[in-house]
Order: sequence, then C-alpha cells, then structure tokens
Amino acid sequence: MSRPLVLASASPARLRLLRDAGLDPSVVVSGVDEDAITHDDPLQLVRALAVAKATAVASGAVPDGALVVGCDSMLVLDGDVLGKPATPAEALRRWQRMRGREGVLATGHCVVDTRTGRSEDGVATTVVRFGTPDDEEVQAYVASGEPLGVAGAFTLDGRSAPFLAGIDGDPGNVIGLSLPLLRELLGRHGVRITDLWRR
Amino acid sequence: MSRPLVLASASPARLRLLRDAGLDPSVVVSGVDEDAITHDDPLQLVRALAVAKATAVASGAVPDGALVVGCDSMLVLDGDVLGKPATPAEALRRWQRMRGREGVLATGHCVVDTRTGRSEDGVATTVVRFGTPDDEEVQAYVASGEPLGVAGAFTLDGRSAPFLAGIDGDPGNVIGLSLPLLRELLGRHGVRITDLWRR
Repeated sequence: MSRPLVLASASPARLRLLRDAGLDPSVVVSGVDEDAITHDDPLQLVRALAVAKATAVASGAVPDGALVVGCDSMLVLDGDVLGKPATPAEALRRWQRMRGREGVLATGHCVVDTRTGRSEDGVATTVVRFGTPDDEEVQAYVASGEPLGVAGAFTLDGRSAPFLAGIDGDPGNVIGLSLPLLRELLGRHGVRITDLWRR
Repeated sequence: MSRPLVLASASPARLRLLRDAGLDPSVVVSGVDEDAITHDDPLQLVRALAVAKATAVASGAVPDGALVVGCDSMLVLDGDVLGKPATPAEALRRWQRMRGREGVLATGHCVVDTRTGRSEDGVATTVVRFGTPDDEEVQAYVASGEPLGVAGAFTLDGRSAPFLAGIDGDPGNVIGLSLPLLRELLGRHGVRITDLWRR
C-alpha cells in the first residue's frame, strides 16, 4: 500500500518534519523561478508557488507512482508579505519591528499524484505571537546567521524559539509544512498517511 | 559569561528542544519517586514535580556553577490528569476519547542556580486541539509504540502530528519544555539565554 513520497523542497526543516512524523521522502528540488510568480493576495501567492513547485517536480524524473509534495511559506505582518531577509541589517530591522507584535505564517501546500496526474492543494495559516527579546538578544540572534535562511527571519524550532511567546494553529505549518493539512490532501487522493510510514 | 546547563530529565524530546535552540546541556536524571508527590491541582502537581527533580539533581554531582533545569508534563482533559498510558489498550482508549476534543498540556519548570542556591519556577499551559484520526489511523499509531512513552499518549513532534488540528500557546511546552518560559526563569537568575548558546 505504501507509495514513494517526494518532497519538492530544499528545506531541511520540512524534511525533518516529515521524517519525525515517520515518513521517508526523497528530495527533488524544483527549478521554479519564484520571482516570476506574483499575486496580490499572500495566501494565493503561497498556494501558486506550492503548485508550481510540485507540478514542476512531478513532470520530471521521480520514482514510479510517486506522490509529490510542494510547499511555500511567507510571514504576513500588517499586510506586508515577508520572505527571507536579504541581509543581516534587514533581519535586525525585521526583529525590531516584529517583537511584541503578531503575524500570520501562511504555507501553501500542493500534492500531485503522478499515477493519476491529479493535484490537490490548500493553504494553512498559523498566528505567531512574537515575544520581546531585548536588543542584545536580537543582535546575538542575527549574528548567529540563522534568520537569513528562513521566511520571516525567525524559526520556531531553532534559536529564536525562546523569543516567540506562542502560536495559534499548527506549529509544523510555521516550520514550513502542516502535517494535518498534508494528511487531508493525501486523503483526497485516497491515500492514508499511516500507509506511508516507514516500517 | 557562559554557564554549564544541566537537564534533570531523561526525555530525549526535551534534550532535542534545547539542542535545537543552540544550547548544549548535560543530562543528569533525578531519582525522584514521582508517585510520592501528589496534588489536587494539576498545575501545582507539575510545578512540584519539576521543583523536586531540579532540586534533587542540583544537590548532587553537577558541574561547577551549573544551572539545573527540571520539568514535568501532564495532559489535562475534562479535569482528568493524564500522564503516560500504561498499556497499548489504554493508549487506544485515550485516543478514542481525545479525538475531536481539546485538552491542556501543562508543563512545570524549575531552574536552580547552584551558585546561589536559589530556584525559580513556573508553569506553562498550551491548549491542544485534537484532530479526528479514524480507527485505522489510531490503531496504526498505537501499534507504532510511540504513545506509550509520552504524557498524554501523543507527540506534537512525532507520528501523531498529523492527528493534531492545532495548538494555542507554546509548542515546545507541549513537547516538554517551554523555551520562552526557560528564558524568563533564566532572566530572573540574571542569566541571558543567548549567553548559554554554544559557539
């Protein structure tokens, strides 16, 4: 009953989420030009990027009968859509703006069944309540280099975890992939997530 | 400025949370008889257990100047306090009761500064909204053995993550240790958490 699972993302955090949940995906990174895809609505933007990534990978060389998962994450803060910060100075400004506030982490998900050619997609949102790290803590965090590689300039599962007061929603979604939503999308393809567990 | 950090817990999930957050604790497990400590209020119970564990370890052989962290977690569902299930049958009954409902994961925390002898403690609570895994999923989950080792018979960072609809609060607290609360307790000892990061 098991099927090969392919993660269409280079994110080590997404891969770890899947592995920790008992899944064993292979990774195939799409060559999608993310800047070429735009949308006024952030939720439609992450959805479109997830669909583009999963579709691109599913149309290439993947194991026979594979299910391909694509994702894309953004932080929405006061209507602004924030991806990865470009420089340490930008990461610092972001944290000075974010602390004590609340944002929404949106992750688009798309699962393509290469056996049927059908795709199912959805967007999960999680409210993120930022804590109030002081200037020295923010400077130490930016100096660690971690915020430069991640959407929103923070991680829920890394060095900024102590600087987050809490969330409302699915924590995996903040890290980059919502396992309850993945379960639902697989279900729409007639696949039970427990059948994909490694033995 | 760095100080040795000691985790007074055998939980691999707590150790991983600390390591992922850039900390590098050593582990010393307390010999506390958990059944000997009782309390009518679940929040006071997890607090008392955390204090007992941290205090016991701090009074033994630990590195010079160590900060000792003790924790204890329980799931509260409809007023019942649920620790680790004793058998697969109990884990199954728990899930049949929990699915579609909402519980509160409470974790008591205590930090002892062995330099001053002072201790600081607190309890963090996180609302957990259980999803609706079907009978086959629940049976597969129990058969995996995972729920037997954990308070509440579920993990937020393991195979049951797809069966949790969402949380409200700190996710680390559900896994067993709240990093924002640890930061606060360290702060009361005059220690900045970023000063404990490994280089």
